Amino acid sequence: MDVLDWLSAALGEEAIAEGVLSTDPALLDAARTDRSGWIATGSPLAIVSARTVEHVQAALRAASEFRIPVVPRGAGTGLAGGANGTEGSLVLDVSGMNRILEISAEDQLAVVEPGVVNSDLNAALEPYGLFFAPDPASKAISTVGGNIATNAGGLLCAKYGVTREAVLGLTVVLADGRVVRTGHRTVKGVTGYDLTALFVGSEGTLGVIVGATVRAQPIPPGEPVTLGALFPDVRAAAEASARITAARLRPAVMELLDAPALERISAYLGRERIEEAFGASAGASYLLVQFDGPTAAADAGAAGTVLTETGGTVRVAADAEEGERLLALRRAFHPALASSGEVLIEDVAVPRSRMPEMFAAIERISARYGIPIPTVAHAGDGNLHPNFVYTGDEVPQAVWDAANDLFRTAIELGGTLTGEHGVGVLKRRWLADELGPDSYELQVKLKSVFDPLGILNPGKVFGA
Amino acid sequence: MDVLDWLSAALGEEAIAEGVLSTDPALLDAARTDRSGWIATGSPLAIVSARTVEHVQAALRAASEFRIPVVPRGAGTGLAGGANGTEGSLVLDVSGMNRILEISAEDQLAVVEPGVVNSDLNAALEPYGLFFAPDPASKAISTVGGNIATNAGGLLCAKYGVTREAVLGLTVVLADGRVVRTGHRTVKGVTGYDLTALFVGSEGTLGVIVGATVRAQPIPPGEPVTLGALFPDVRAAAEASARITAARLRPAVMELLDAPALERISAYLGRERIEEAFGASAGASYLLVQFDGPTAAADAGAAGTVLTETGGTVRVAADAEEGERLLALRRAFHPALASSGEVLIEDVAVPRSRMPEMFAAIERISARYGIPIPTVAHAGDGNLHPNFVYTGDEVPQAVWDAANDLFRTAIELGGTLTGEHGVGVLKRRWLADELGPDSYELQVKLKSVFDPLGILNPGKVFGA
Repeated sequence: MDVLDWLSAALGEEAIAEGVLSTDPALLDAARTDRSGWIATGSPLAIVSARTVEHVQAALRAASEFRIPVVPRGAGTGLAGGANGTEGSLVLDVSGMNRILEISAEDQLAVVEPGVVNSDLNAALEPYGLFFAPDPASKAISTVGGNIATNAGGLLCAKYGVTREAVLGLTVVLADGRVVRTGHRTVKGVTGYDLTALFVGSEGTLGVIVGATVRAQPIPPGEPVTLGALFPDVRAAAEASARITAARLRPAVMELLDAPALERISAYLGRERIEEAFGASAGASYLLVQFDGPTAAADAGAAGTVLTETGGTVRVAADAEEGERLLALRRAFHPALASSGEVLIEDVAVPRSRMPEMFAAIERISARYGIPIPTVAHAGDGNLHPNFVYTGDEVPQAVWDAANDLFRTAIELGGTLTGEHGVGVLKRRWLADELGPDSYELQVKLKSVFDPLGILNPGKVFGA
Repeated sequence: MDVLDWLSAALGEEAIAEGVLSTDPALLDAARTDRSGWIATGSPLAIVSARTVEHVQAALRAASEFRIPVVPRGAGTGLAGGANGTEGSLVLDVSGMNRILEISAEDQLAVVEPGVVNSDLNAALEPYGLFFAPDPASKAISTVGGNIATNAGGLLCAKYGVTREAVLGLTVVLADGRVVRTGHRTVKGVTGYDLTALFVGSEGTLGVIVGATVRAQPIPPGEPVTLGALFPDVRAAAEASARITAARLRPAVMELLDAPALERISAYLGRERIEEAFGASAGASYLLVQFDGPTAAADAGAAGTVLTETGGTVRVAADAEEGERLLALRRAFHPALASSGEVLIEDVAVPRSRMPEMFAAIERISARYGIPIPTVAHAGDGNLHPNFVYTGDEVPQAVWDAANDLFRTAIELGGTLTGEHGVGVLKRRWLADELGPDSYELQVKLKSVFDPLGILNPGKVFGA
């Protein structure tokens, strides 16, 4: 019996009739890529569109039995190639497991299946005055399971925490098909090792997440207040963001756009919209800041003073609508880049105090390779997204060379080569550089505890 | 050559002259216990009072060479027997590694050695307007390394997070003496598995923490506002605390004292002080709430309305001094119990919504065994400390039987047998009950990745 026969029998007639198992070439082809643009060579063997935990168990048992690689996958919005279906693999798509099983307003948590889309969860939580904090840029289409698999970040992290801090407990199917539950429905709990935290960010290499108990936080009361400031250069903008933090102000959002980024947005939307929204012409660096909660207006006032004193031309949005227009300009950054070619979005993070140095390094690297590197930063937590625009099917070697320089600089500055996207395929060759040999060796051994046969997303994270 | 000769040579003459290695019976005897009162049988072999990372490395190399158990230890303020020096072990005391190596106001972090006492760290951070959030009741004497080893909690966790959320990176000496660094100086970072989170709460069973980069949060501006309410019974007080949370108020402190707890405090301090502070006579249940930050006064007003509507007799402290008096009464709880015997402090946590059921179970178990169980709860996160007072050197079997019932109830209610103290020796026999066999097996295998020879704190956490 081959693996597909075995798997068909394990899934059962009903699942087969529902199309849970497919070898449709179009589906298989679509599963070879994600939003990074990287396409796996060769074709996956089949795709399991799981609807239940039992489907996931059947897939993993089949994979264990036949030593077939399994690639867990959600909405495919990853940016590191972590969920891409590789040659001969069984793609395990859990995006159809998308029920919200429980919302507890009292315990401020939700119990969800992994395929729930971020924005759907937040729509369901909103009537309770609660929200799920992780907010990757793809939140309209990304899933909670994908957030957990990558320990996703987003704009709100500096104030509201990364995904790890939003996960209380998990249900995971192990490589051999057993189901384990980790964590609790409580905020506190120290019984044994923190397996929950270990699975968060493990990119499908330790098990397949089939359920999560996540924290829901109270929606901050009142209207958010947004302000922005134009600076003569990116160093001044970075300095201004550092001073906001130093003033002990805690913005919900603080986004920094450098000159190449502003130029692209300006070309995409038209210079008039930039001038109208920013109250000044583009071409320099911009810092966008939003405060929420009961002291939003007072905080924005204090921040405005800081920004002015740092040499910024400041504009405070008069109302929510104007604030939304400022944010919309920031959101236009990725579409602006995508309109002129393929985009590689990089993702370094450095300590906040080293941001000016990192921006200086980006300028230097851009000049050295003759490649523009428009960059946006989540300035509140030092997470920078330098972007490369290219044409063709593959990232050019010069872009990778420039990215290599970026990664090494970030690590030298006390930071990391990935703040929130993950390692996947695209960054695995730098993993050991950042971790060092001893930590790398421990991680490989940890993986083998969970995955002795090496069937869980092989070639991802490790194995450059 | 025996282990002590080998270790002496490895430590070097200077360390030996400084008394880093000792077999002083008084020191060894003191290292057999912690604040739980549990005393290890037999005597440790020796104690290494490490001053440097090299001392720790030498101790672990010696232990690996001779297969000697190593018991990492800080201030000895643990409540589960995790740091108690067992028979024939090498106690590795890192409380002398107590330097604050760096405070970065810009990056809002501190780099510390493990022996830094919580209150010393906070005293050093205060001029920068920052604080280290973990605040176990022992914070005046407990160490940051101990906080990390147990993933310590405290009163402020519901609002400011447990220790895991306050740790950015660690320096750890592995069982064979190698040094690894985990994490970053950044808030974000997803390169590889989260070894930092794995070491947090590992109770000395995976490695010895010799350095930590910890988050420092801005001190909330303004004066805190404290209020309290007396309720006819503990269920009403628990209901009131749930309504405060449901009203989306976020107290910094919310402590619930049941009737047996209040009685003990009253007997200890005198009824007059209770009446003066609470504005009512003791004997019922009490909820103490403190708000901080710029909206403290408004939040306290809203909370007062909620407490009154729930049937409480409410008193809002007129000023910081009166607020401090209310907190002092809460702090008198443990001294009050200790004044009448030995105390076993238990540490279950349940989802907030299940607190009334947990309190009802405590009353039932107390009646069944004829043992008073005065209880205080961190009501904001559902973490209850049921206390047992006994006489003699050992915890009586009836107390353990009652505790066993408490643990099982907490687990049934979706909670845990330890919210913040850890497993150590005293709770290891219940570990598998809470984790289940598959998760337990994974944890044992994880330990063996880090500790193949089984020398790191053997008999703690695992091995009941």
